[in-house]
Amino acid sequence: MKATVMYGAGDVRIENVPDARIIEPTDALVIVTRAAICGSDLWPYKGMRASEEGRRMGHEFIGIVEAVGADVRTIKVGDMVAAPFAWSDGTCIYCQEGLHTSCLHGGFWGGTKLDGGQGEAVRVPQADGTLYPLPVGRDDSLMPSLLTLTDVMATGHHAAVSARVGPGKTVAVVGGGAVGLCGVIAAKRLGAEQVILLDRHASRIALAKEFGATDIVSERGEEAVVRVRELTKGLGVQSVLECVGYDESTLTALSIARPGGAVGRVGVPQGEAMPAAMPTFFNNVTIAGGPAPARAYIAELLPDVLEGRIEPGRVFDWAGGLDQVPDGYRAMHAREAIKAIIAF
Amino acid sequence: MKATVMYGAGDVRIENVPDARIIEPTDALVIVTRAAICGSDLWPYKGMRASEEGRRMGHEFIGIVEAVGADVRTIKVGDMVAAPFAWSDGTCIYCQEGLHTSCLHGGFWGGTKLDGGQGEAVRVPQADGTLYPLPVGRDDSLMPSLLTLTDVMATGHHAAVSARVGPGKTVAVVGGGAVGLCGVIAAKRLGAEQVILLDRHASRIALAKEFGATDIVSERGEEAVVRVRELTKGLGVQSVLECVGYDESTLTALSIARPGGAVGRVGVPQGEAMPAAMPTFFNNVTIAGGPAPARAYIAELLPDVLEGRIEPGRVFDWAGGLDQVPDGYRAMHAREAIKAIIAF
Repeated sequence: MKATVMYGAGDVRIENVPDARIIEPTDALVIVTRAAICGSDLWPYKGMRASEEGRRMGHEFIGIVEAVGADVRTIKVGDMVAAPFAWSDGTCIYCQEGLHTSCLHGGFWGGTKLDGGQGEAVRVPQADGTLYPLPVGRDDSLMPSLLTLTDVMATGHHAAVSARVGPGKTVAVVGGGAVGLCGVIAAKRLGAEQVILLDRHASRIALAKEFGATDIVSERGEEAVVRVRELTKGLGVQSVLECVGYDESTLTALSIARPGGAVGRVGVPQGEAMPAAMPTFFNNVTIAGGPAPARAYIAELLPDVLEGRIEPGRVFDWAGGLDQVPDGYRAMHAREAIKAIIAF
Repeated sequence: MKATVMYGAGDVRIENVPDARIIEPTDALVIVTRAAICGSDLWPYKGMRASEEGRRMGHEFIGIVEAVGADVRTIKVGDMVAAPFAWSDGTCIYCQEGLHTSCLHGGFWGGTKLDGGQGEAVRVPQADGTLYPLPVGRDDSLMPSLLTLTDVMATGHHAAVSARVGPGKTVAVVGGGAVGLCGVIAAKRLGAEQVILLDRHASRIALAKEFGATDIVSERGEEAVVRVRELTKGLGVQSVLECVGYDESTLTALSIARPGGAVGRVGVPQGEAMPAAMPTFFNNVTIAGGPAPARAYIAELLPDVLEGRIEPGRVFDWAGGLDQVPDGYRAMHAREAIKAIIAF
């Protein structure tokens, strides 16, 4: 079968790899119908050390179940399924608490041992715990939005939940990439009154406004902090969604939270440290978040997608087939595209 | 009147200072009957740069109202009152939310402009918002426990609340000073099933056990992390109360939280930075806490003190008059005493 393999910074190839197949009795074999390229795929695209072995890529995909192992109980052959960006058994103490990304018997797609989503088929471990059946046909027009439930929409929602967004609250979203844009959707969906996007790219800003952002701050650093304060009666915001992960964006996020507020971090931290004292400690600002338990959120978000109340699939502004994946990486890296969807 | 003034590291003196008096119409004049020396008073005792002007000390006190300004409405002359470690107007947006330490018109005792609690009398700004009337006589046997409501018991409770302690949870308290010991009380009071104290001093450990600590970990650093994991089925604890503030204790606190857990920080951070990624981000560990809004907690904690269900006053193991205050600092600094109470 064909799949995406990364061999180093900027070096993404579509190659023939061993066919995905059932190995464990809890596995399912999924034929991929849609996949995506993630902002987090760009971190190795920028900095991965050259490797002869290569690394299988992709952790957001939807597909059709082709076969299941002997112990799979709920997932059936022929099911259209969404695969969250982490696989999980659905039964351990953390899965029971809704924190599937910390599953005691789970893990992440791709790398050197597992299939990735940017390929023709995937062996899915712990199929019953991992896969979420979708009540739609394979080329349903909602596919782009459904695909975001495997990562970016779930991640934006996690940022909002971690930042304690609720009715009437003031919110800031740091970073208007696909996750930040989904954070805007999530904040509005949870009842936020004011949603300030911090970003400077025209296409992102335009989409954020359509998603419900009420204010845009394009300044950076201390100027951004001043501007957010001006927009919030000098107080700062109650909820901050940190959707980037750089030191500067994290510092900005911590600095624009008002006393008693919360920062939901979902941007994978690229730096080593964050401030221990000012401003978070003395202002009793809570820092929460991490990898989103997408598997736990699909049930909550799915009806809003199916009934058209949210349209997170609009973050995809680049589409191609598997052979175009390397150009999708290039386009996202060059910021020509917000996010790429791959149709099989 | 006489009051405590610090002139530099290790240099604490009892001196004559101008009499406290009403200045603003919202002030009250309080004659101090009990005060305490705080672990946080030891930070300048260790490191304050020599100053000719000096710094008035003390932020935990109980006293009798001697006079009130023209605009004071609820506090009356003759009231026995507790003064939280921050003063606050009780009406601003943050006070209404219960975050009195961020009061828009509040502040902290002592320093170069205000009276401190370790003196014969104090001008109390924003008297109606700040002072909490106590239904007891001036030498009631509960005075030590009541005095802890002005800081350490409220702070231990804040750590527990910030760390989301609740019925049946596993809890660790990092640091067995007066705040940590009160954290043990708070954790048990909120229903924790397992309370692990991390400390190595015999007197603190003995008291923690009486307060309900179920396990003691005297190792430090990575060994402490391993030991806490052993005590918690390899998972780590759901709630961590960080009651020290050093880099090492903060790192330990972050490292022993289980995925999805929370760290309530109340030890004033002495370092610059804390880890941005591992272990908190990938484990979705929440970092919360800061200065405790003691004023907000007194109403909740007071009945338990009055009815003897909690005895936080047992953290005082040194007592003296105002003239002995310098020796109280010395004893606490030398770790001969956990906490000092001053009777006037």
